[in-house]
Amino acid sequence: MAMDVAQVLIDGKWRAADTEGTFHAENPAKGKVLPLAFPTSRWTDCDVALAAASKAAAELRSVEAAKIAAFLEAYAGNIEGAAGEIIAVAAEETGLAVSPRLKDVELPRTTNQLRQAAAAVREESWRNATLDVEKNIRSCYAPIGPVVIFGPNNFPFAFNGISGGDFASAIAAGNPVIAKAHPLHPNTTRLLAAQALKAMESAGMPLATVQLIYNVSNEDGLKLVSDPRVGAVAFTGSRGAGLRLKRAAEEAGKPIYLEMSSVNPVIFLPNAVTERGDAIAQELVDSVLAGSGQFCTSPNLLVVFESGRTEPFLAQVAKSFQERAAQPLLSSSGRTQLAGGVAALRDAGAQIVTGGDNAPGEGYRYANTLLRATAEQFLGAPQDLQREVFGNATLAVTVTSRKELESILRLLEGNLTGTIYSAKSGADDEIYNAIAPLLRERVGRLLNDKMPTGVAVSPAMNHGGPYPATSHPGSTSVGIPASIHRFAKLDCYDAVRPERLPAILKDTIANPKTWRFINGTWVQG
Amino acid sequence: MAMDVAQVLIDGKWRAADTEGTFHAENPAKGKVLPLAFPTSRWTDCDVALAAASKAAAELRSVEAAKIAAFLEAYAGNIEGAAGEIIAVAAEETGLAVSPRLKDVELPRTTNQLRQAAAAVREESWRNATLDVEKNIRSCYAPIGPVVIFGPNNFPFAFNGISGGDFASAIAAGNPVIAKAHPLHPNTTRLLAAQALKAMESAGMPLATVQLIYNVSNEDGLKLVSDPRVGAVAFTGSRGAGLRLKRAAEEAGKPIYLEMSSVNPVIFLPNAVTERGDAIAQELVDSVLAGSGQFCTSPNLLVVFESGRTEPFLAQVAKSFQERAAQPLLSSSGRTQLAGGVAALRDAGAQIVTGGDNAPGEGYRYANTLLRATAEQFLGAPQDLQREVFGNATLAVTVTSRKELESILRLLEGNLTGTIYSAKSGADDEIYNAIAPLLRERVGRLLNDKMPTGVAVSPAMNHGGPYPATSHPGSTSVGIPASIHRFAKLDCYDAVRPERLPAILKDTIANPKTWRFINGTWVQG
Repeated sequence: MAMDVAQVLIDGKWRAADTEGTFHAENPAKGKVLPLAFPTSRWTDCDVALAAASKAAAELRSVEAAKIAAFLEAYAGNIEGAAGEIIAVAAEETGLAVSPRLKDVELPRTTNQLRQAAAAVREESWRNATLDVEKNIRSCYAPIGPVVIFGPNNFPFAFNGISGGDFASAIAAGNPVIAKAHPLHPNTTRLLAAQALKAMESAGMPLATVQLIYNVSNEDGLKLVSDPRVGAVAFTGSRGAGLRLKRAAEEAGKPIYLEMSSVNPVIFLPNAVTERGDAIAQELVDSVLAGSGQFCTSPNLLVVFESGRTEPFLAQVAKSFQERAAQPLLSSSGRTQLAGGVAALRDAGAQIVTGGDNAPGEGYRYANTLLRATAEQFLGAPQDLQREVFGNATLAVTVTSRKELESILRLLEGNLTGTIYSAKSGADDEIYNAIAPLLRERVGRLLNDKMPTGVAVSPAMNHGGPYPATSHPGSTSVGIPASIHRFAKLDCYDAVRPERLPAILKDTIANPKTWRFINGTWVQG
Repeated sequence: MAMDVAQVLIDGKWRAADTEGTFHAENPAKGKVLPLAFPTSRWTDCDVALAAASKAAAELRSVEAAKIAAFLEAYAGNIEGAAGEIIAVAAEETGLAVSPRLKDVELPRTTNQLRQAAAAVREESWRNATLDVEKNIRSCYAPIGPVVIFGPNNFPFAFNGISGGDFASAIAAGNPVIAKAHPLHPNTTRLLAAQALKAMESAGMPLATVQLIYNVSNEDGLKLVSDPRVGAVAFTGSRGAGLRLKRAAEEAGKPIYLEMSSVNPVIFLPNAVTERGDAIAQELVDSVLAGSGQFCTSPNLLVVFESGRTEPFLAQVAKSFQERAAQPLLSSSGRTQLAGGVAALRDAGAQIVTGGDNAPGEGYRYANTLLRATAEQFLGAPQDLQREVFGNATLAVTVTSRKELESILRLLEGNLTGTIYSAKSGADDEIYNAIAPLLRERVGRLLNDKMPTGVAVSPAMNHGGPYPATSHPGSTSVGIPASIHRFAKLDCYDAVRPERLPAILKDTIANPKTWRFINGTWVQG
């Protein structure tokens, strides 16, 4: 193997991959292949990583919480220390703006997530310690075992398998992680892994706690998620890949958490548009074009209740789409898929209002695209007209009656978010009250008068939703402690002698901050 | 259809099933077929029930918590009111003793579960309301949608799909239930359904909240769990049936909670047996023979550390097995399967110490059976020697060293429970400390010096465990509120106007007992 192929991080060492081929990332803003070659690993690499992860999982069970927290904090600090290089490489691999996107938003969000996870580890309330003292039955969450994480293409830091929300949650629960890099930003992931390794070393963690493989064959991916040594799997990405991994993992009895696709319907009630159409159009354009539309929560389906203001409203959106320069997409294939998605919407009857073709400029750009269809068209082809089109394109469906709107809502698949804009005056309240319950059933997060593209890191957040947006409507990938619970096993102790209980389940504990549920009452400390 | 075929309960009405055949239950203590014919429904019945359940699910979203609680309480009261007939019929269909089993243990447990669920519904703490007031993001658990429940053969009340723990949890979360009766006790289930209907009527619930189908073809069962109108599925039963349902439900994106099989290893450390072998042997015999060994948590695998007391200990167990009369099993096919399981253990090298054949007496009895094998044999055929043998038979594996014991533990599949008996003197502590972590990873509930067959209804209970005991090591089917959360969807509200929030998420709430997590602090009221 040539010397200039990047090395994988397995069992605490950078080592040459057992490679069955190499690949290169590309600068999508330039359409230029980047120099460093990355390996596609053979099964051997997965096998060695799984063995090391198993060993680390057993070791981690006796590593104190403070050390895991220290690792997460050191890692966050290291990322900040190396931010210049990491951001430059990420910008190169993704075409995303250094500022504000990568430097001022995504990197701070990422280190914040790692630090929130660290705080949760120190506090230990996530363990949900539950004591029935009279019966001497006690339970708490404990690590589930090695977690394999597949990160998506669109957030090189905040959802990266080696630094994002799934990573922070899996580590916080006390599990080792095997990260599968997204092949669109392998070098970013490599740089992050280097900081993770330094943090493991400084914190004294088992060095196989964080491992990195850049790519594997589809077949080995399925083998990886169904390996007996795996505790759980997390995946963020396309529905096709997600469903293949889901089938393999579940067939092997492995819990798998997927975030797959979402059109994030945004409903504009008539009096909202009449009342403040200009401002809403502005918010909408900002949201649809954020990250060139490549957000999981990007509004892909607008439902506009017809009123005298509908046409000016849509015209204003179209005008802004035309005025703003198309930003580069994450990849050439992403652009091809986007074009294919737009073509499919057209085939299903949608009309192009603006855009609908590649855009000029360096790299892989597609014109900001607005399509429209009538409610009648949507109701005639509900599957085809609610397909996720990943990128800077969105479909507006005009409805003329509450009945049509309700019919559309009843046909929606599961989504991460659903938004309703209504008049501040109260003039839309009657229709709001009628439709909100229908939307509520189909989404994880319901918003009012606010675009869904921001996903706050809050204990109250649900970044999840009914299938096929995710694989379980009760779990979330953002928001601590709930995101940690996905990677936990429930350990119950029945009549276990006091000295043998884990510290968190003893009658008294040292940490005054830990919330525990004791004899039916939440108690801190 | 003949008039003497039992009717299904669909959409609040007893109606003739669209039947593709009928079946009869049997009195297994007599080996006598019972007179009443029960229908195997065609798909039409499922379809009509699903439509009614969908409608009920939507209605239930606006039914106040107090009414759901009142229904559960009325149902518990009705069961008690009709206890005489229900118990008599259950005894007839299962061969289980009226007293203490059905009358004094299982029925009170069942009504207790329904009342605990009612209390949880009234208190509303199970909703896990989480408020981030500053960001105005709020979330809580909400109903997941219609739940299809397949109950097992062994607990005609406490795990019945129409009255057991899964039922109580699904209803408490605000979901309608479609119960599929176990074909070994259809008449018991019919009587329970009648009480549920009366309770729905008196509480003013949507009458499709509880529906009953007795049996369907395997094909329709798979279709039922994967129907788009289903919110979630619960199943307790055999691994084969469970895995088929799991595949179908998961392929359709439906959460399914399964309890499938468990050998519930009980480990006897040498000094425990030396110290109090007689008492332990007694406990063991009571536990293995409880319910004729037909408990999910029945000890099927004993691991006995060899000492001078091992042979007398095993001899005492064998003697008690011989002295106690074999109790009837739940069915003829159950006895055939038990005999097949014992034969398979023998084929894998285990030796019969006592039993190993049908037993005399009325009905379907099998001799209380003790088998034994060496650690070496177990390690040579770990899969074959840890198969669940459902009934009054158990396998004792003798080990001669800690290393052998550790090797066995490493090869164990996931189990509901794992138990260690150790000396009170502390003489076994070193070995306990070495092996407990290995056992811990493989079981949901770890016990000390106590047999696993009792499953207390406590918030701290975990009646669950790693695959293949269940489908997710983080969930439990017994213990409120965790068992309720399985049937819940996480509803997040982001910037939703105060007057539009559900009551549980408003700044202030009426119920002084409700625990909520507000700005990082658990607050009651």
